[in-house]
Amino acid sequence: MTHIAITGATGFIGRHVLAQGAAQGLDVVAVTRGPAPARQDNVRWVSLDVASPPDNAFDLLGRPDVLIHLAWGGLPNYRARRHFEVELPTHYAFLRQLVEAGLPSLVVAGTCLEYGLRDGALDETHPVAPVTPYGFAKDALRQQLEYLQRDHAFNLAWARLFYMHGDGQAPTSLLSQLRAAVERGDHSFAMSRGDQLRDYLSVTDVARNLVALATSGKNVGTVNVCSGTPRSVRGLVEQWLHDHDWNIQLELGRYPYPDYEPIAFWGTRTKLDRVLETL
Amino acid sequence: MTHIAITGATGFIGRHVLAQGAAQGLDVVAVTRGPAPARQDNVRWVSLDVASPPDNAFDLLGRPDVLIHLAWGGLPNYRARRHFEVELPTHYAFLRQLVEAGLPSLVVAGTCLEYGLRDGALDETHPVAPVTPYGFAKDALRQQLEYLQRDHAFNLAWARLFYMHGDGQAPTSLLSQLRAAVERGDHSFAMSRGDQLRDYLSVTDVARNLVALATSGKNVGTVNVCSGTPRSVRGLVEQWLHDHDWNIQLELGRYPYPDYEPIAFWGTRTKLDRVLETL
Repeated sequence: MTHIAITGATGFIGRHVLAQGAAQGLDVVAVTRGPAPARQDNVRWVSLDVASPPDNAFDLLGRPDVLIHLAWGGLPNYRARRHFEVELPTHYAFLRQLVEAGLPSLVVAGTCLEYGLRDGALDETHPVAPVTPYGFAKDALRQQLEYLQRDHAFNLAWARLFYMHGDGQAPTSLLSQLRAAVERGDHSFAMSRGDQLRDYLSVTDVARNLVALATSGKNVGTVNVCSGTPRSVRGLVEQWLHDHDWNIQLELGRYPYPDYEPIAFWGTRTKLDRVLETL
Repeated sequence: MTHIAITGATGFIGRHVLAQGAAQGLDVVAVTRGPAPARQDNVRWVSLDVASPPDNAFDLLGRPDVLIHLAWGGLPNYRARRHFEVELPTHYAFLRQLVEAGLPSLVVAGTCLEYGLRDGALDETHPVAPVTPYGFAKDALRQQLEYLQRDHAFNLAWARLFYMHGDGQAPTSLLSQLRAAVERGDHSFAMSRGDQLRDYLSVTDVARNLVALATSGKNVGTVNVCSGTPRSVRGLVEQWLHDHDWNIQLELGRYPYPDYEPIAFWGTRTKLDRVLETL
C-alpha cells in the first residue's frame, strides 16, 4: 500500500487531497504546523513546521513513499517578493532534506503563472516566462529540484495547477465572493467584463489527479493539471448562478483584468491524460 | 566625481576594473574579505564579507554612487548546486541591503551561460534557458533584482560577460594552461578539436566597459559585454602562439566539447555600443 505524506493538508486543495487519499484506502500522513485537527480514518496527523523541520522529519512522517507538497505561504498576493525571498528557500531546503533522507517520490504544486503572459493553449514544452514573483519562485523551485535530481535519484511530478473551484475556497476567490454576495442579499455583483478565457477544474478532480500522480511511481516531470477546455469567466459565473439557483445581477466591466495574466489561456491535458492512462 | 565600490576586487576581472577606475581618477572603494592588499592611489580598501555584511555596510563603503558587483563563489564548477543554494541567496541579500540603504546604481556581472544551449548570435531580447546551476543562479539573481526595482528606485546594468583573456586569469583557463605548458617546455598541448566558435574579449576591454556602465547613471538593464565577433577556439590559440612567439604542437581533438555549451555562440554588441555612444 502506498504511503503518502501531504503538506498544506489543511489548505483548500490539501483537504480534498487528504479526503481522496483516505477514500482510496491509502496510508496517509498529513502535515500541519498547528495542532492536529479532528481524527479521520486512515489519516495520521504530524505537527511540523516546514520552515524549521527537525532533523528527523522524514522519520517523523513515517518514511513515506511519496510526498504531495502543497504548502506555500504568501498567497494570494502574487506580487510579493516573499515568494522568492522566503518561500523558495524554505521549500527547497525542506524538500532537499527529505530527498537526502531517502524520499523516493515527490509531487509538487506548480502554477499556470509559470507560463507568464502567453495566450492560447499552453503545453508543458512551452518555455516559461513568469512575470510575477509567485510564478518566478515556483518555476525556480522546479528547476532547483531538477538539478537536485542530477545528484539524487527521486521521482518528480511537477503539477502545474490552473484555476480551481470547489468547497472551502479562499474568501478572495471569485466563487466565494459570489456566494457571499448572494448570502448578503446583494442585488448586484461587480466583476470584470468576464470575457477572458480561463481553465477551471473542480478541486475534487484536481485532488484525484494529484493522488494518481503520487501513486504512479513514475518520474513524470512537469505536467499540467487542468481541464484542457477554455471557459469565459462570465460563462462560468452564469453557470454557477444556474447550478445554485442564485439570483443576482452581474455588473460586468466594473473591474479591470489583472495585468499579470494573458487575456485568454488554458492548459493542454494531453500529457496528463497520457500519464494517467498508462498507470 | 563618481564614487564607485567594487566587490570581487581581488579577482581576475576585479583587479582590471580597479586599475581602470583608479586610472580614470574615480573615487574607488575596493571590497575584500581578507586584509587589504598594498596601497594604491585613488583606491580605499574595505574588509567586508559579502556573506555576512554588517548592518552599516553601505556606510562602510562610503555611501557609493554605484557598486560594481563581481563577487561570486564556487567557480569554475558551473554544475555545483552551490550556485543557487549558497551564492544566489547570499548575493541577493547583500545587494538588497545596499539598495534599501540607498545605493542608487548597480552593475552586476552576469554570464553568457544564462542563454543556455542556443547557437548563433545572442542578443539581450532572446529568452534565456540556462542548463547549469551557475547560469540558472545568475539569471535568477537578475530577475530578483528586477522585482526589487518595482519596490525601490535604483539603476541596474546586468552585464552578461562572455569569454575573456588577459593577465591574472585562473590557472584552469585555456590561456593559462597554454602558457603553463609552454613554460614547462611541453612539446604538445592537448585541447578540444577547437572549431567551436566563441566570443572573446580582452579583460581590459571588459573592465573599461564595466566602468563605463557604472558611470553612465542609467538604468541600462541587461547588456552583453562581448566582442560581437565569433572566433574559433583553434584560431584564437594559434593567434596567442603567434603573439607570444610560443612554439608548441597543438593536439587537437584530445578533449570533448563541454555538454553545457552550444557549439557556436557569440554575443551581439549592438546594445552595448548604443549605450556607450550615448554617454
